[in-house]
Amino acid sequence: MTNLRLATAKECGRTVIPVDSVRVGEGFTVIAGPCTVESEKQTIETAVAVKKAGAHALRGGAFKPRSSPYAFQGLGLKGLQILKKAKAETGLPVVTEVIDSRDVFWVSEYADVLQIGARNMQNFSLLKEVGRSQRPVLLKRGMNSTIEEWLNCAEYILNEGNRQVILCERGIRTFEKYTRNTLDLSSVPVIKELSHLPIIVDPSHATGRASLIPALSLAAVAAGADGIIVEVDVCPEEALCDREQTLTPAQFADMMGKVRDLHRFMAVSS
Amino acid sequence: MTNLRLATAKECGRTVIPVDSVRVGEGFTVIAGPCTVESEKQTIETAVAVKKAGAHALRGGAFKPRSSPYAFQGLGLKGLQILKKAKAETGLPVVTEVIDSRDVFWVSEYADVLQIGARNMQNFSLLKEVGRSQRPVLLKRGMNSTIEEWLNCAEYILNEGNRQVILCERGIRTFEKYTRNTLDLSSVPVIKELSHLPIIVDPSHATGRASLIPALSLAAVAAGADGIIVEVDVCPEEALCDREQTLTPAQFADMMGKVRDLHRFMAVSS
Amino acid sequence: MTNLRLATAKECGRTVIPVDSVRVGEGFTVIAGPCTVESEKQTIETAVAVKKAGAHALRGGAFKPRSSPYAFQGLGLKGLQILKKAKAETGLPVVTEVIDSRDVFWVSEYADVLQIGARNMQNFSLLKEVGRSQRPVLLKRGMNSTIEEWLNCAEYILNEGNRQVILCERGIRTFEKYTRNTLDLSSVPVIKELSHLPIIVDPSHATGRASLIPALSLAAVAAGADGIIVEVDVCPEEALCDREQTLTPAQFADMMGKVRDLHRFMAVSS
Amino acid sequence: MTNLRLATAKECGRTVIPVDSVRVGEGFTVIAGPCTVESEKQTIETAVAVKKAGAHALRGGAFKPRSSPYAFQGLGLKGLQILKKAKAETGLPVVTEVIDSRDVFWVSEYADVLQIGARNMQNFSLLKEVGRSQRPVLLKRGMNSTIEEWLNCAEYILNEGNRQVILCERGIRTFEKYTRNTLDLSSVPVIKELSHLPIIVDPSHATGRASLIPALSLAAVAAGADGIIVEVDVCPEEALCDREQTLTPAQFADMMGKVRDLHRFMAVSS
Repeated sequence: MTNLRLATAKECGRTVIPVDSVRVGEGFTVIAGPCTVESEKQTIETAVAVKKAGAHALRGGAFKPRSSPYAFQGLGLKGLQILKKAKAETGLPVVTEVIDSRDVFWVSEYADVLQIGARNMQNFSLLKEVGRSQRPVLLKRGMNSTIEEWLNCAEYILNEGNRQVILCERGIRTFEKYTRNTLDLSSVPVIKELSHLPIIVDPSHATGRASLIPALSLAAVAAGADGIIVEVDVCPEEALCDREQTLTPAQFADMMGKVRDLHRFMAVSS
Repeated sequence: MTNLRLATAKECGRTVIPVDSVRVGEGFTVIAGPCTVESEKQTIETAVAVKKAGAHALRGGAFKPRSSPYAFQGLGLKGLQILKKAKAETGLPVVTEVIDSRDVFWVSEYADVLQIGARNMQNFSLLKEVGRSQRPVLLKRGMNSTIEEWLNCAEYILNEGNRQVILCERGIRTFEKYTRNTLDLSSVPVIKELSHLPIIVDPSHATGRASLIPALSLAAVAAGADGIIVEVDVCPEEALCDREQTLTPAQFADMMGKVRDLHRFMAVSS
Repeated sequence: MTNLRLATAKECGRTVIPVDSVRVGEGFTVIAGPCTVESEKQTIETAVAVKKAGAHALRGGAFKPRSSPYAFQGLGLKGLQILKKAKAETGLPVVTEVIDSRDVFWVSEYADVLQIGARNMQNFSLLKEVGRSQRPVLLKRGMNSTIEEWLNCAEYILNEGNRQVILCERGIRTFEKYTRNTLDLSSVPVIKELSHLPIIVDPSHATGRASLIPALSLAAVAAGADGIIVEVDVCPEEALCDREQTLTPAQFADMMGKVRDLHRFMAVSS
Repeated sequence: MTNLRLATAKECGRTVIPVDSVRVGEGFTVIAGPCTVESEKQTIETAVAVKKAGAHALRGGAFKPRSSPYAFQGLGLKGLQILKKAKAETGLPVVTEVIDSRDVFWVSEYADVLQIGARNMQNFSLLKEVGRSQRPVLLKRGMNSTIEEWLNCAEYILNEGNRQVILCERGIRTFEKYTRNTLDLSSVPVIKELSHLPIIVDPSHATGRASLIPALSLAAVAAGADGIIVEVDVCPEEALCDREQTLTPAQFADMMGKVRDLHRFMAVSS
């Protein structure tokens, strides 16, 4: 791992990334919202609910990289406009995925944080392009990627001049079938050892099961993560994707209380 | 997963397993000690140190299932006798591995808990034999085993009449190379959903790196685990195996304080 | 891989293992038969059929290591007696699994080759016990085992004085779901580089699909394997286990013709 | 796998893809050449050598998707121009990778077949773009991708109107460390069952070891593959990438003879 220009926090201090008034890497940042933007009503109601429960930012996909070309591919520009409205309504900054290097420039008009999805982690053209933008980037770990490869992908972004990279552990592919992927929580202390960048955890995609999300969110806090990103929807049962892994606003609010208390305890006791 | 005779805690309540005065499944149980019993001095000094730091039971291997036949295979009976002395000295009950169905009867004279190692998880003859003993069994998850297979192995033991099974998550084999295995902490809430049995976590074998153990032990507490099993040695740098993943007594004591505080907080706040 | 006492064929020549009149490691050895011995009729009829199609040895399980304790565990001694009758009828030597170190001695009365199953590859007590027997051993690769670990397990047997070890590649566990496991055919030339021992391939367990077996058996011949072991049953649709991966005698006979022709071609052309 | 528009060869016949005078899907197509285009001399000399040995097409990378941003990224346009010269010299059509959706149009001027690399298998924007081009596409399987996902990615291309897709198995990521990846040769008969598209095999990237390539190329022929793609370089020891897995022209010529003979034998005997 010799080429990591900005290897450890010991050498250069932890990086804190400002997103509007949120400071990722200080405190514990919670990003919540629907898997996919499906309608204005769904998105704004969800945004209002997660804001009320204490979330710091809104997630929601306008471009969905789906395994099959015949599956719903997202609302595109219309989805981004809805997210902008939701931000206007709630003040929550928007985290949304970009999947094509040609879209980075104009999507940045709507996104406060550009998300690189797991399937595109090694799409080096896209990495370079977000590296040339001014937006913070949420870089998901590829589901088959080693931590070293993931950090090298962060380097692709840093190397273009954009140092605002938030790493996101979202589970790796293993033989275990009960969960959708295997959340590799060890990556949290490993990243703290190897890098100055903040790391958040996505228990929704990692497990694929709503019932497991609270326990693993608390585990993420205790392991030292800088935040979580969670799927919440006002009507999970009507969602077009990821139904089984989506929390209701009530479940999310309940979990938020515990996450906040635990983080406060950890901050005091360490 | 239809054949699980004693599927969920909802149906039959959580199982609590008494080991001397320790009650596994109530509170948070910490088992600590050397990877391998190498000498009386090493074992007793380590036992005294972990007892002082608050451990509830002593671990230590007398039979070591090693990848190569030319590697140190453990002290056998002599190792068990040393563990017995360490128990006499400290009062800590002894957790030790058994690797041959022919040894179960006599090893039970020395062990308070019989450990089935990851490599033997599907050694069904051995499972049946410990199922016929009176001793609690610590059943490690095979490094390539699904949660369903692991629970089926517990069934092999339960089915012989021994209901005192403690499950132990110790990491699964993946492509990630920075850690020795990938700790699957999701298995903790999954087991809580599917089974009445207690589950503990082994961050030492899962990660293979001492520096990662404290963060993951705290994560295990937060995820709802019933305990941890950790490698501690008075002289890790002289240990014949698992050097890199072994804590010093001082590191262990420091971690114990945090684990205890966190568990107390979790107990109160839930 | 420094401890491999008998590392390469360059150093000590290829090992050929006589099993009655069959010489494993010379020519191409085909072992065929039912997954499990279920009745005398089924076993003998299958043995007669595979003999007629050109098989060199009969496989069949009397002890079945099953994931669940409630699944059929095999006929035990009665199964071994049936195998002995099938040998008397056809002259085919018998390959059968042993799963408990206490059984090695008496099972050797019935088995011409003792099979160590994938789940027991690292059951070191069992390995040592078959190492002390006079019988050739078929050592299956564990489904989560590296080639290096597998060779080390062969060493456990060799180290006890029994040099008659036949390695058997049977697929490893990966994320791919269409096949039961992933057949690692690279292990054939790798073993030829690293070891003097013969290696055969089990396409039945590796793929779990009868339709894929002929193509992969031919691939095994071309890759340089010393043989294959295949599940064949007179009534696959009535078999208690592994139905989907079992060939009918007619399918097997058809495949045998192609395998024989290909092996002859390879022998001439190289 | 319900959405696969053109599921099986039974329904629509096998697809044959013309590339100049080569017909992929008929006979056995061998694509060979350097990992990366490094100089005119290296590329043309290698092209001449593989042509002489019987290769049907030339491979060579001008854009290299490298794990680290500090590694050599390829010669870009200059590399493509060199490939064009090599084609003029030898008549071999050119297979080369495209990594950015913005490059598809102009790279098509230089490439006879557009390669989508393993890391970009699920780069859906890129898939759609090559789907709109007139060029045949070589679609490598992602190293963490199931066969179903891979076929769905082919659908992304077919769905845009380009039916000239050649699938390429190049190994999947597993725990095995002796080989770089695990060649999943089962995918060959699986693809023949599920799809009308031709499939070729890349033993170079799958194994990462030159010594294993001949055995696995022969295995690919025997398994029914439609071709192979192999790394050959006049000076493997000077190559900037993939040195260990690159054949010399002499090794390649020797292998080609065997591959040709075996394919001829298979064609006659089936």
